[in-house]
Amino acid sequence: MEASEIRMDVTKLLERLSRLGKDQEGGVTRLLYDSAWKKAQRFVASAMYVAGLEVTFDEVGNVYGKLAGTDEAAPSILTGSHIDTVRSGGHYDGALGIAAGIAALSDLKAKHGIPRRSLEVVSLCEEEGSRFPLAYWGSGNVTGSKDFEGALEARDSEGITLREAMFNAGFDPLLYRQSRRSDIGAFVELHIEQGEVLQRGRFDIGIVSAIFGQRRYFVEVQGRCGHAGTTPMNIREDALAASAEMMVWMRRAAMQTGNGLVATVGKVDVVPNVANVIPGEVRFTLDIRHSDEAALDGFCELTIKAFSLIAKEMNVLVALECWLSELPTLMNVELGEAISRVCDRKGFSKLPISSGAGHDAGLFASVCPTAMIFVPSKDGHSHSSEEYTSPAEVERGTEVLTELLHTLAYGEEAT
Amino acid sequence: MEASEIRMDVTKLLERLSRLGKDQEGGVTRLLYDSAWKKAQRFVASAMYVAGLEVTFDEVGNVYGKLAGTDEAAPSILTGSHIDTVRSGGHYDGALGIAAGIAALSDLKAKHGIPRRSLEVVSLCEEEGSRFPLAYWGSGNVTGSKDFEGALEARDSEGITLREAMFNAGFDPLLYRQSRRSDIGAFVELHIEQGEVLQRGRFDIGIVSAIFGQRRYFVEVQGRCGHAGTTPMNIREDALAASAEMMVWMRRAAMQTGNGLVATVGKVDVVPNVANVIPGEVRFTLDIRHSDEAALDGFCELTIKAFSLIAKEMNVLVALECWLSELPTLMNVELGEAISRVCDRKGFSKLPISSGAGHDAGLFASVCPTAMIFVPSKDGHSHSSEEYTSPAEVERGTEVLTELLHTLAYGEEAT
Repeated sequence: MEASEIRMDVTKLLERLSRLGKDQEGGVTRLLYDSAWKKAQRFVASAMYVAGLEVTFDEVGNVYGKLAGTDEAAPSILTGSHIDTVRSGGHYDGALGIAAGIAALSDLKAKHGIPRRSLEVVSLCEEEGSRFPLAYWGSGNVTGSKDFEGALEARDSEGITLREAMFNAGFDPLLYRQSRRSDIGAFVELHIEQGEVLQRGRFDIGIVSAIFGQRRYFVEVQGRCGHAGTTPMNIREDALAASAEMMVWMRRAAMQTGNGLVATVGKVDVVPNVANVIPGEVRFTLDIRHSDEAALDGFCELTIKAFSLIAKEMNVLVALECWLSELPTLMNVELGEAISRVCDRKGFSKLPISSGAGHDAGLFASVCPTAMIFVPSKDGHSHSSEEYTSPAEVERGTEVLTELLHTLAYGEEAT
Repeated sequence: MEASEIRMDVTKLLERLSRLGKDQEGGVTRLLYDSAWKKAQRFVASAMYVAGLEVTFDEVGNVYGKLAGTDEAAPSILTGSHIDTVRSGGHYDGALGIAAGIAALSDLKAKHGIPRRSLEVVSLCEEEGSRFPLAYWGSGNVTGSKDFEGALEARDSEGITLREAMFNAGFDPLLYRQSRRSDIGAFVELHIEQGEVLQRGRFDIGIVSAIFGQRRYFVEVQGRCGHAGTTPMNIREDALAASAEMMVWMRRAAMQTGNGLVATVGKVDVVPNVANVIPGEVRFTLDIRHSDEAALDGFCELTIKAFSLIAKEMNVLVALECWLSELPTLMNVELGEAISRVCDRKGFSKLPISSGAGHDAGLFASVCPTAMIFVPSKDGHSHSSEEYTSPAEVERGTEVLTELLHTLAYGEEAT
């Protein structure tokens, strides 16, 4: 039997994972510590076991599968991603990195036996922030790079605290800090792109150079309600008309800035939202991302100034509240080059790419050399049941991951 | 005792009416045929009785108070307004015209006795369309100028049909068409401006020259959802960004058109309305009004064209549905001149004004010479508990109405 035939079928693993939390619309909903989540982590644990790995759950529910190396003192090479999903999410976001990691370790063990450095695959418990108003509960605890002060008292939409949910899932809430690790030598995450840059350029593999920094704002525009028929245009204090001017300004400015900057208004609430009443109040969100911190800062400052000017001109008041500010994160250059060499050897086309979405890799980057490998997402669909990456694309991503891990754990290549 | 001391106190009548349907927020809610409405119409009937008028309810619940004239063959001079309110409306919209009408007839009878032509004041049962999806149930039936085919099967938000509501209020649904009248010689309505043009110009009285025509549209913009972080600006099909461009275009075009045209987006619904998702669909409303039909038409055509161009440029689809189209209505010129002369005699400052809001007078205008007298609205507040017109302003409006009715019913002035 050829070694390549031993490899676990990643697409089949994904298909089986997708059944755990499947909802009526064909999406997958696995929220931290809920019953679908528990089934999925148990399934992952058993797949790791079948792959010949040592399986352990940590204090917050991350599941590790380990292939211990001969050099016990050397930090582990870790791969993996997150098991949780958004509400009615897809089959690939998170799950791909776990399934491919298990397959890679299974394959490496079968082909090459015991590595020099320990190899581990992790199924991180939480990344999306879909159940509780916190994200990265998995990688944030492992890396210790998130301040989770007060997090146990966070409540889900049903009023259940994280403390209760954790306890009910069989984990001791008081011990969550013990999940922190300081013995990780490198982290590699395979993930779908969640955009359509690779598809449009017909690239097999994206080599992530940076994860975008982002700012999120609440914008509140205060005008004055009025009768749509009896209030002349020139004396209006129309909160919606002013908001529309702001939205138009921001999109045009973002287009002009270019260089990958993205700026989005995703949510708008109009008060009173009645056809024949001039809106007195509008609240909307800004989501601004860029790979360069200075450029991101500059754009946000410009936006705040422009909004103030527009508000003044339109006779309304505007207030912006920045409630999320994440720094851009650079991926490790040497690991990126190693991925590039693997692609060259395999004849896969590759593109250096920035990730507009946040990832667990962003948290690992603060504690160890970290890399991300992207595979194409059909039409950029993400966070929906339409997410799709073909078996061939999944296979290519898994091959690149496997070969990189081989280089890192069996060879002499430094990290 | 001076004749002027006999006059019923309009502000006091309004205050007593405002208690019928008072809600917790200080607003007034009187919906067609509900219990507050019944109390209010009974109160109006008793006030008419006290004023020495012959009181009758018609088949749909309009209440008339009549001061019969000596010339029984001559058509009646009618004044009045509507008793119903929007949800949590103010104390003046509608109620003012009824209270002032009762006071005027009471005053005229006391001062001048029996008129030559019959004078009537009417408390119309419905104008706002707040309970059922139809408006002008009062004046529409009296004038026969509305097509109420199928109206009896209209349902309120609780599923009750107009037929049931009417029956439960003690009126026979089968007889509604019998409320039509063909013996009205003129209609005069005193109403609050519901805007702030009079206040800003410090005018006592507005003489309405026309009631705006209006068009209402539903606009549906179809784009494509996308991840706010991973979708580059230049490949987006952002339904909200396109909608904002449309809103900005329309407001600017309306400002340029000038001449009293008003164009409003009052309601916006964004799908999925999530901060980090590029909106795939936006639905919003247009409310466009003008006193000139050709100008209104031209502006709407221009808007539809501009929206199509913007949609094309922004890579989205747009569909507009016109669901309401009302022609502008001219008020009677001779009656307007008569009001103007009354103002001059009394030393009241006056302004010819177009009404951006619809009124019962608009329906009477199709069957008899019709006039509207406006009094100022504090800060233009309307359709809210903040509606306010001072006792002095109410008094001036009532004086003008009284004097006009005197001229029409006692004198020789033709209508």
